[in-house]
Amino acid sequence: MRILYTSTRRIQAQAAIYTETGDPQKVIKVISHKVPDTADELQRNEVLIRMLAAPVNPSDLNQIEGSYPVKARFKKLNAVDGTNTSLIATVGGNEGVAEILATGSSVAGLYNGDWVVPRQAGVFGTWCTHAVVKDKTILKIPSGWREGVEAIDVACLKVNPSTAYRLLSDFVDLRPGDCIIQNGANSGVGRAVIQLAKHWGIRTINIVRDRPHLPELAQELYNLGADVVISDKQLIDTGDGRIKIKEQIKSLKAPICLGLNCVGGRTTVQMTKLISQGGVLVSYGGMSRQPVMLPTSLLIFKDISARGFWMNRWYSDCTLFNKKEDEIRNMWRNILKLTADHHFTTQPLQHKYWRDLSTEQSTSLVKEAVSWDAGIKQAFVFV
Amino acid sequence: MRILYTSTRRIQAQAAIYTETGDPQKVIKVISHKVPDTADELQRNEVLIRMLAAPVNPSDLNQIEGSYPVKARFKKLNAVDGTNTSLIATVGGNEGVAEILATGSSVAGLYNGDWVVPRQAGVFGTWCTHAVVKDKTILKIPSGWREGVEAIDVACLKVNPSTAYRLLSDFVDLRPGDCIIQNGANSGVGRAVIQLAKHWGIRTINIVRDRPHLPELAQELYNLGADVVISDKQLIDTGDGRIKIKEQIKSLKAPICLGLNCVGGRTTVQMTKLISQGGVLVSYGGMSRQPVMLPTSLLIFKDISARGFWMNRWYSDCTLFNKKEDEIRNMWRNILKLTADHHFTTQPLQHKYWRDLSTEQSTSLVKEAVSWDAGIKQAFVFV
Repeated sequence: MRILYTSTRRIQAQAAIYTETGDPQKVIKVISHKVPDTADELQRNEVLIRMLAAPVNPSDLNQIEGSYPVKARFKKLNAVDGTNTSLIATVGGNEGVAEILATGSSVAGLYNGDWVVPRQAGVFGTWCTHAVVKDKTILKIPSGWREGVEAIDVACLKVNPSTAYRLLSDFVDLRPGDCIIQNGANSGVGRAVIQLAKHWGIRTINIVRDRPHLPELAQELYNLGADVVISDKQLIDTGDGRIKIKEQIKSLKAPICLGLNCVGGRTTVQMTKLISQGGVLVSYGGMSRQPVMLPTSLLIFKDISARGFWMNRWYSDCTLFNKKEDEIRNMWRNILKLTADHHFTTQPLQHKYWRDLSTEQSTSLVKEAVSWDAGIKQAFVFV
Repeated sequence: MRILYTSTRRIQAQAAIYTETGDPQKVIKVISHKVPDTADELQRNEVLIRMLAAPVNPSDLNQIEGSYPVKARFKKLNAVDGTNTSLIATVGGNEGVAEILATGSSVAGLYNGDWVVPRQAGVFGTWCTHAVVKDKTILKIPSGWREGVEAIDVACLKVNPSTAYRLLSDFVDLRPGDCIIQNGANSGVGRAVIQLAKHWGIRTINIVRDRPHLPELAQELYNLGADVVISDKQLIDTGDGRIKIKEQIKSLKAPICLGLNCVGGRTTVQMTKLISQGGVLVSYGGMSRQPVMLPTSLLIFKDISARGFWMNRWYSDCTLFNKKEDEIRNMWRNILKLTADHHFTTQPLQHKYWRDLSTEQSTSLVKEAVSWDAGIKQAFVFV
């Protein structure tokens, strides 16, 4: 991102930046700067955007810590606070939706008021009120798709619901009546899987971590369309609980052809044992920080295969092989259509309203939002 | 298998049988019986064969123990020792080559003197001197393929070399110059992989268990065509040994697109880390009895996938979908051609000569051969 400063006509803007990787709550801070409010000062291929909403994803925090494969790109940011100092920093966040305020002279197909999202992770930070970005780094959300959806729905479209969409689409040829099993079922991806599967006629067996208010959480997931909800404790139980689960699963009368894993470790082994002959286990996360363990017999005799999925790689492939861009549009349009029709909703979010704040206020807002202990997914809302 | 006994014209035959699963050395014994020596007494679709050679595979021992997915089929065997008693038993062994001695009236395309092998595991036991089998349970080895090869080469064709052939053919589109990595490289499959890969221009990095005479074993594998041979100890070494290995691998200047695993556990993790982005780890055995452990990052960010291979399933699929039978013939012809041309040799074998022995002698011969501690692969040779 280039933050401009030479003009006198400016928008007062803020951005959550860090100058080195480390504990998010320690390294992140908000700076104020100015961006132009007209197209005159933009380069031919630049676009001025103001963010509408941007979530905090675990991968964003990993990126700040330096442990994510997409590394933060530290670049010279000019004229912080108009003091003419400059610093080498990067703006946090990879997902979000913005509105176009102005476009450079050679920008085609993008107009003021259009909603846009970053084309892929790492191209520019989304935790800021405004940004000047290259036109090729953004994708437009056609105005027709915005009907009946909120900015926050679009802001959270690119990672979790899209991951769920691909997990259900790209590994096994699922047909209505088929059955899948997943752990971390109350995560953003997990909830999206339940809702998309429900819509496509696919049954879901959903594993969540054991917890005090398990029945309430289970009810939430049943309300989203889950067919079976069980706890990891029940899964590894060797007694009656296990038998009951097996009966529940049996009653679905469908082979479990796909397993979705974001946990790893011991309970994932138990889950994998429930997958049918020839099925696929796809890992897209590793919350337990334990490896995926596959008893050799499952691989050899039961022909289970283990794959991995990374949403970023999928988007990169789309950009590399441009023909696939239609697939992005098709996926997003489908998800937003389901959202507008009340068949799909994003996971529970805590909105952090970032508007009309001093840099001190927004710094403390951001520090709260980037806590690993927030308990519920955080999202910045700018409008 | 039907063992006939009503005729007066008979061949004195022996078979290694067991009546219950358990420790191979305890449950197995040899019985004598008689089989007809002409076609008169055969059913229309039966074939009388005499075994030429039959190896002892680990899977045969697992089957006797009851721990193998292909279960022993206990059937009524008549007239053991001509005493008119009968017992419910099964004959050991799944692999081997036999010569046809006589054919029933409706048997087509099979003639006396033809060499045949069992079509798939579990159809009849091969640890016997003679057997009467259904024509559909055997596959003929065309006489042209026998030139320059021994019966023992054909007897050992179906499991290890064929597994190696499929491992190199069915998972990754390997091209000359590509590189693969495997553990258990001195096993029957491992040695076959080295030789086939060499012939096809594919480089091999070979991991063996650390042992006192490592250099001698390494030399053996280099003589077969290995490009790099290292021990599992060197693989997990964090010091100079590791750096040296990395340099050796780097010098091959090729991505490692395929990993072959018959071990599992900790060293397999290290091996998998050497596989290139998007590569495949195929497990076909689990000697360590430890699961295959995959750090989530390898699955997600490095796009490594884990598959399993079971030769029996492949043959079953061939039989189910008959068009694939050409693939069996093609594979076997290729391997035997390489053998005749001295580009391929079976693993070191201890020949157990089973001919003109009393039942007591052959029982002790068989008990020796089915020991898990034999150290070297055992094979019965009947001629």
